[in-house]
Amino acid sequence: MGFDQNIRIGVLGGGQLGRMMIQSAIDFNLDISVLDGDSNAPCKNLVENFVKGKLTDFDAVYSFGKNCDLITIEIENVNTDALVKLQNEGKKVCPDPAIIKLIQNKVHQKQFYTDNNIPNSPYTIVNSLQELKSLGLDYPFVNKLATEGYDGRGVEVIRSQEELENGFDAPGLAEDYIQFEKEISVLVARNKSGEVKSFPPVELVFHQKANLIEYLFSPANISEEASDAAKNIALKIIELLEMEGLLAVEMFLTREGEFLVNEIAPRTHNSGHQTIEGTVTSQFEQHIRAILNLPLGSTDVIIPSGMVNLLGENGFTGTAIYQGIEEVMALEGTHIHLYGKKITKPFRKMGHVTITDNNLDRLKEKAKFVKSKMKIIA
Amino acid sequence: MGFDQNIRIGVLGGGQLGRMMIQSAIDFNLDISVLDGDSNAPCKNLVENFVKGKLTDFDAVYSFGKNCDLITIEIENVNTDALVKLQNEGKKVCPDPAIIKLIQNKVHQKQFYTDNNIPNSPYTIVNSLQELKSLGLDYPFVNKLATEGYDGRGVEVIRSQEELENGFDAPGLAEDYIQFEKEISVLVARNKSGEVKSFPPVELVFHQKANLIEYLFSPANISEEASDAAKNIALKIIELLEMEGLLAVEMFLTREGEFLVNEIAPRTHNSGHQTIEGTVTSQFEQHIRAILNLPLGSTDVIIPSGMVNLLGENGFTGTAIYQGIEEVMALEGTHIHLYGKKITKPFRKMGHVTITDNNLDRLKEKAKFVKSKMKIIA
Repeated sequence: MGFDQNIRIGVLGGGQLGRMMIQSAIDFNLDISVLDGDSNAPCKNLVENFVKGKLTDFDAVYSFGKNCDLITIEIENVNTDALVKLQNEGKKVCPDPAIIKLIQNKVHQKQFYTDNNIPNSPYTIVNSLQELKSLGLDYPFVNKLATEGYDGRGVEVIRSQEELENGFDAPGLAEDYIQFEKEISVLVARNKSGEVKSFPPVELVFHQKANLIEYLFSPANISEEASDAAKNIALKIIELLEMEGLLAVEMFLTREGEFLVNEIAPRTHNSGHQTIEGTVTSQFEQHIRAILNLPLGSTDVIIPSGMVNLLGENGFTGTAIYQGIEEVMALEGTHIHLYGKKITKPFRKMGHVTITDNNLDRLKEKAKFVKSKMKIIA
Repeated sequence: MGFDQNIRIGVLGGGQLGRMMIQSAIDFNLDISVLDGDSNAPCKNLVENFVKGKLTDFDAVYSFGKNCDLITIEIENVNTDALVKLQNEGKKVCPDPAIIKLIQNKVHQKQFYTDNNIPNSPYTIVNSLQELKSLGLDYPFVNKLATEGYDGRGVEVIRSQEELENGFDAPGLAEDYIQFEKEISVLVARNKSGEVKSFPPVELVFHQKANLIEYLFSPANISEEASDAAKNIALKIIELLEMEGLLAVEMFLTREGEFLVNEIAPRTHNSGHQTIEGTVTSQFEQHIRAILNLPLGSTDVIIPSGMVNLLGENGFTGTAIYQGIEEVMALEGTHIHLYGKKITKPFRKMGHVTITDNNLDRLKEKAKFVKSKMKIIA
């Protein structure tokens, strides 16, 4: 496959990741169709062919895919059986349904790391709360559901007997709580020809309560040696998987200077939004290049960047109001990205702001300013 | 006016300039409607509300504008009487219809420069070919139609008696042929609050036969002093016009080091495409900020850039084929922008390629590579 503007691309999921991919796909005259269960999804008005349907429903995914040549995802919580059938019928599916299936299950993900000598935090597989309790683990530790975890859900830190009593009661795993120095993310891409490319590692700061990325900086403030080590881990994973498309690899950098893989996502990712402004090629264009087996684009940093997620303010639900947006726009080097969501909810991802600046301290100052000034209320 | 995602923006013209403005407007949740006479216009599939109608037709423009709160343009060849009526009825029109009217007429444009001490090339107003011939001008000179000139049309260089005999026979002007050192363009923006900002001057290279920009470099390779002088001329014009929105000012830099204004366009412009990748804020976002009276964005150069117009190859008409696109994509720092035009024609603007590189020589090499490799045939 190469450049073919007549290829019919179907995207499972019509959220902000799909939206930004469409913005990029416009530059290549590509015809994108979108499937999403929400008729007000962020992609709704950007494509001619928006289909309403549940992503986890076999028939919805299968009948949507039948009208496409290439099916890709912007969320991994999709019906993989339908994707396998589509693939067997000659449709191109990126990433391979087997990869999506692997990543849908956190226990299988962990086993994959262990089987392939990919550094990750020590863990124990559990089948129930009773089994978890019987392990008598020291607090704190991390409890993860095997399935249905997405966007910060399905993960809990257990800090006390009381929290343990109220823990998940389903198959999953108990993981060591890593006292990390930094949390970083590395995006890598691979095309069918086997070409691979890594974006520079970025440094993530999480929102404690929402368990979502609050803001990030690119490139991460780590040594070149450390940066190369992190990239090599991410590249090793995408090559082992023989994946086509973009893969996000979140890692802990421990106090001992070791990288441990935390989670991976076989798609464009929240930790790559700053690539739109900060690197030569954006993650969205890179994903398009990768799935079409086109040459991958340069991932060089043009300018250091930060990204602040615009999360719906806690306590507000209703039609979104963007408080402070003009003050943020007046700040040099800010780039507003709103996701077209009419309704805000506590911690809902409503948009993000990228900030560019050659000076890292000023970048952090600006990120703080954006976080303090811009509020999404109802 | 400030940030209001519910404002209904109408764009007159659905070409590539509108298309790239829509790509930018998505980031602000803005609802854009488009009017264009061609039902296959580049904007067609990007907006919910695409209206087919002739831009020069009073009724088409008026009834389109009635359903908008703010009307702007991506081409100046529109019915200004309808815009005046809409304005009188309380609609916001950017730029002011009087400015569009002024710019539609090259004779009035010239008189405006002269009346306001804006340097421009010496000229004589003529009403007919007979009058032009009676002037007995030395060859070469430039003959321009007063009206209907657009995108390289309505301008001819008269180099001989024979060319004079076949010259335009309509009201217009005869202008000195300037032996210029460089052709440059400066984009400036102004909002209602009176804030103004200039992009760095860019250096244009024209296609001789098509009289269209063939490629450009940003920033122009001129002294800082010269750059400031050029910016000041452009800023003076937008302030004199009290225009809201983006204004492109094309100038000659003469061999004597003087800037002479050649033409202006009260809209986003072909000479600003490289701002998407090369400056902090793109011309499209800047236009949106300006017409909504939002703070103007930084116009600082992030990385030097070049832009190559992808013109339909001479001799080919039909469904477009993009030859060499993969080789161009494999080159570091290239950004493809296709305009969604199904049919190519000789010299039709089908897309452009932006190239970024910190080294000016390498930038020029890459531009040459793109020009030689990528051909749009049928």
